Amino acid sequence: MSDIKTIDVKADIIETNDTYTKEVRAFLKEQGVFLINLMASPGAGKTTTLIRTINALKDRYKIGVMEADMDSDVDAKLVSETGAKVIQLHTGGSCHMDALMTIDGLKNLGIEDLDVVILENVGNLVCPAEFDVGANLRVMILSVPEGDDKPLKYPLMFSVSDILLVNKIDALEVFDFDIDKLKDNVTPLNENISIYPVSALNGDGFDDYIAELIRRIEDEGH
Amino acid sequence: MSDIKTIDVKADIIETNDTYTKEVRAFLKEQGVFLINLMASPGAGKTTTLIRTINALKDRYKIGVMEADMDSDVDAKLVSETGAKVIQLHTGGSCHMDALMTIDGLKNLGIEDLDVVILENVGNLVCPAEFDVGANLRVMILSVPEGDDKPLKYPLMFSVSDILLVNKIDALEVFDFDIDKLKDNVTPLNENISIYPVSALNGDGFDDYIAELIRRIEDEGH
Repeated sequence: MSDIKTIDVKADIIETNDTYTKEVRAFLKEQGVFLINLMASPGAGKTTTLIRTINALKDRYKIGVMEADMDSDVDAKLVSETGAKVIQLHTGGSCHMDALMTIDGLKNLGIEDLDVVILENVGNLVCPAEFDVGANLRVMILSVPEGDDKPLKYPLMFSVSDILLVNKIDALEVFDFDIDKLKDNVTPLNENISIYPVSALNGDGFDDYIAELIRRIEDEGH
Repeated sequence: MSDIKTIDVKADIIETNDTYTKEVRAFLKEQGVFLINLMASPGAGKTTTLIRTINALKDRYKIGVMEADMDSDVDAKLVSETGAKVIQLHTGGSCHMDALMTIDGLKNLGIEDLDVVILENVGNLVCPAEFDVGANLRVMILSVPEGDDKPLKYPLMFSVSDILLVNKIDALEVFDFDIDKLKDNVTPLNENISIYPVSALNGDGFDDYIAELIRRIEDEGH
């Protein structure tokens, strides 16, 4: 997989992030690209979700992927097998992507021939929520094994996300996880969030999620 | 549970952390207290592991707990039911505890009557690995649903930990997780780490882990 480009990006401080957020938004608009920021804990199923999403959308859109990782290339290799244009971003130990890293990544990826770019953020429920990378849509994943109490402990991530995928519902019977309790914990933080129980492994629940993605992408004029 | 003390602690920068690490170590030595830093992703089972650990050790040692959380008190309430002396630390949005927050926490907890203090760090596989809080022992948890590839993606956490608990082995049959593959991924990063497959839910595998904890605590002269 030697065709996967790798660049090293450095963290910028949170205060100056907003300047670059505007720059990302202007660049996306100019290029006619819709950017999705995909966020979750390590092991929640980001990469499996990403691959299933690409496969569902790739006949309709030209898709690019930015794989943010602290220093490995594991996910980029897997994702490139979908045929999407993939770039690996090394955050140099930073626990999140910021807007400066994002614009750097978009330019290195080369987005002039793309419709949709998905950023797979660093696995983390904390830092990525604090840094607005200028995406058109923020999708977060909470997986069943993590527990239905997580909105109480990591509220910001649930507050800033547009879509919440509740992943690994195929494992519901072995975990003490209550979807209604989860919804009760999320709603006070964010009443507009769309919640989809899914299994990225077997595809259950994905149709409705993909339909909303397409609607959101079309609403932006793509 | 109004007897749970809550203080707000602020993040210090990584460069000055080392000064405070020495201060934490000196304070622990002076007070004869053994500090365990417990780290993991959100939902890996930190609190369940902590409660089972306290129950296994509480006849032998006087135990204190520092519950680090961004802004909730969920875990502290549960943990205080074990009878351990518990303090809630709010990190004010920071994704980890540092040594300055730790010394602040230890002083507010009051450790003169304790033998062992366990710090439940913020749920995060990235930042807590970067900040040495001055603990005598670093225990990390990786849960089966997170996947056996995590050492490749979050290497620092596996490098700095003394003990790795592979939690939720009761769910092994529903996940594609290979313990041998995990060990192959961990060993190049840290050949001295002790690995224990456990179920914090039903207690499987805990005896060996607890035996090592007691050995480590005794080795420090407690």
